[in-house]
Amino acid sequence: MIEPKDPDFEARVRASFASQSAMKSLQIQLLSLQPGRITMELKKSDNLLQQQGFMHGGVLTAGLDSACGFAALTLSAPSVEVLSIEFKTSFFRPVSTEKVQVIGRVIKAGKRVSFCEAEAFSLGGRDQVLLAKMSSSVAMVDMPEGWVPENRS
Amino acid sequence: MIEPKDPDFEARVRASFASQSAMKSLQIQLLSLQPGRITMELKKSDNLLQQQGFMHGGVLTAGLDSACGFAALTLSAPSVEVLSIEFKTSFFRPVSTEKVQVIGRVIKAGKRVSFCEAEAFSLGGRDQVLLAKMSSSVAMVDMPEGWVPENRS
Amino acid sequence: MIEPKDPDFEARVRASFASQSAMKSLQIQLLSLQPGRITMELKKSDNLLQQQGFMHGGVLTAGLDSACGFAALTLSAPSVEVLSIEFKTSFFRPVSTEKVQVIGRVIKAGKRVSFCEAEAFSLGGRDQVLLAKMSSSVAMVDMPEGWVPENRS
Amino acid sequence: MIEPKDPDFEARVRASFASQSAMKSLQIQLLSLQPGRITMELKKSDNLLQQQGFMHGGVLTAGLDSACGFAALTLSAPSVEVLSIEFKTSFFRPVSTEKVQVIGRVIKAGKRVSFCEAEAFSLGGRDQVLLAKMSSSVAMVDMPEGWVPENRS
Repeated sequence: MIEPKDPDFEARVRASFASQSAMKSLQIQLLSLQPGRITMELKKSDNLLQQQGFMHGGVLTAGLDSACGFAALTLSAPSVEVLSIEFKTSFFRPVSTEKVQVIGRVIKAGKRVSFCEAEAFSLGGRDQVLLAKMSSSVAMVDMPEGWVPENRS
Repeated sequence: MIEPKDPDFEARVRASFASQSAMKSLQIQLLSLQPGRITMELKKSDNLLQQQGFMHGGVLTAGLDSACGFAALTLSAPSVEVLSIEFKTSFFRPVSTEKVQVIGRVIKAGKRVSFCEAEAFSLGGRDQVLLAKMSSSVAMVDMPEGWVPENRS
Repeated sequence: MIEPKDPDFEARVRASFASQSAMKSLQIQLLSLQPGRITMELKKSDNLLQQQGFMHGGVLTAGLDSACGFAALTLSAPSVEVLSIEFKTSFFRPVSTEKVQVIGRVIKAGKRVSFCEAEAFSLGGRDQVLLAKMSSSVAMVDMPEGWVPENRS
Repeated sequence: MIEPKDPDFEARVRASFASQSAMKSLQIQLLSLQPGRITMELKKSDNLLQQQGFMHGGVLTAGLDSACGFAALTLSAPSVEVLSIEFKTSFFRPVSTEKVQVIGRVIKAGKRVSFCEAEAFSLGGRDQVLLAKMSSSVAMVDMPEGWVPENRS
C-alpha cells in the first residue's frame, strides 16, 4: 500500500466528495477509500439515459472522472486540490445493468500531475463485466495559504 | 456543406435528442443542426457541480459526447445508430459562467467509424472563451431491418 | 487464457511483425506471443532521441502501437487485418534506460473494434518501472477473399 | 498573432529541433515557425512502414508529437523545456502519399500545462487530405538556473 502524505486523507476526501453536488444528482455513491484507490457505485436512473435506453456515456464518465480525481486526492497533501487536465473514456459495452461499480486508482502520483485510471464494472449478474475504462491526468494544484475547502468553511 | 444521406436528418436527429432523458436532466438543449454540425447549450446547475463550485467535468463531457454523436447522426442513413467507441476531453479552463455553448462537428465521416470533435465555449462575457474540447470516435451501427427508434415506436 | 480463432496465430502474427519495416529501423523486437498478449523489447538508439536525450515519445509510441495491434491480431481470424483507429499514450517518466519492455494486451476483443492496452517498462535496474501506457482502439478489417498478406505473397 | 515571451523563439526552437536525433532518422523536417504554430514535413520511407505498406502510425505520431511540443516551445520563456504529458492520435486514413505535411498549434498556452493539436495532411495530390490528428497536453518545465540546452553547450 502507498503511504499517504495526509494521515487524515479519508475524512478529507469524503468531505470533498460530499461537496460535489453532481454526485448526488447523478446517483453516484462513495463506497470505500484506500491510499491511491477508491470504490464508488452508480445507479442507473431513468432520467439519465441516452437514446437507446442505456446509461448516458457522459454520466458514466462523471463517475469515472470523480473516481480518478478523488483517488489522486487520497495521496495529496491537505493544501492540494485536484483538477482534471484531460481524460479518455473507452466504452466496451453499453450499460444495461441497474448498478455499476467504479474503481479508481492512481497509476503514478506526481507533484504536479498524477496519472489515474478508473474502471466501470456491471453489478448484478454472476460475473463482473468490464463496461468502460478511463485514463486521465490530474493537475495537483497548491492552494493559497489560508485556503479552506468549500465544504468546511 | 456536406450532402446528408438522409434528407430528413433534422427531424430524425431532433427526435433522437428528445429521447435522451439525460439531456433534460443535465439542462442541455439542442439549438441548431446542419449536416455534420450541431450547436447545443448547457446551463450551469447548482446540483451538477464539482467540489470547487465549477460545472462537473463529467456533465460538460455529457454535452460534448452528445454533440459528437448527434453530429455523426446527421450524416448517417436512417437505419444507422451511433455509439461512442471512445472520447477524450481536454479541460482548458474551469466552467464558471452560467451558460456554455457546445459545437459538435464531424471531422471524417465513415461507414463504420466517424471521427468527431466538440468544443465548449463560455457564453455571457464579451468574448467567447474555449473551455474544453472533445475528440471522439463513433461507431456507425446498422440496425436490423424493421428497427424503429425508441422515440417513434 | 482466451481461445484464439486461428490455431496458427503465432506464425501469422510473427510473419506480420516481420513485414513491418519500421520495427527493425526502430530497434523493436518481438519476444513472445500468447492469445491476446504480446511481449516486445525496444533498444534505446542514439539516433532516435528527443532534445533532452531521452527516447523520443513517438518511437516509444510506435512500439506501444505495434504491441496493441499485434495483440489484437492474435485473436483474429486469418482473413482479418488490424488498423489503429486511435490511441492515447500517457508518459509517466522519461526513458533513460537502454532497454524497454513493452507488453500489449487485448482488453475487449470485438468483431469490428478491439480495445487494447500496452505498457512500457524500464529494463536494467533492480525494479521494473512503468514508463508509459497506451490505450487504443483497433479496427478489425475483413480482407477481400483471395487476399494474401504482403509478406507471404 | 500571439505575442511570444521570447523574441528569439525561432532560433531557440530551431536549435532544439536540430538536437532531436529522431527527427533526422524519421525523415522529418522543420519548415516554418510562428508564435504558437509550426509546419513540418515527413517523407515516407521504405524502412518505416507497417505491415500493409503504409507509414507506421508511430512514425507519423513522432512527427505530430514534435509538432505539438515545438509549437508549445515557441511561446515559452527561454528557461522552460517541454515534455509531453500525454497525447491521443486519431487515424482518419492510412498514409500512402510520399510526403505528409504536419501543422502543430497551441490551443491554450499555460504556465504549467499547454494544450496543443497537430494535423497531418497528405501532400502530392490535387487536394490536401487530412490523414490524422493529435490532441496533446505538454508540461512546461522550469529548468534550474544555469541550465544550458544540450545543443548549445
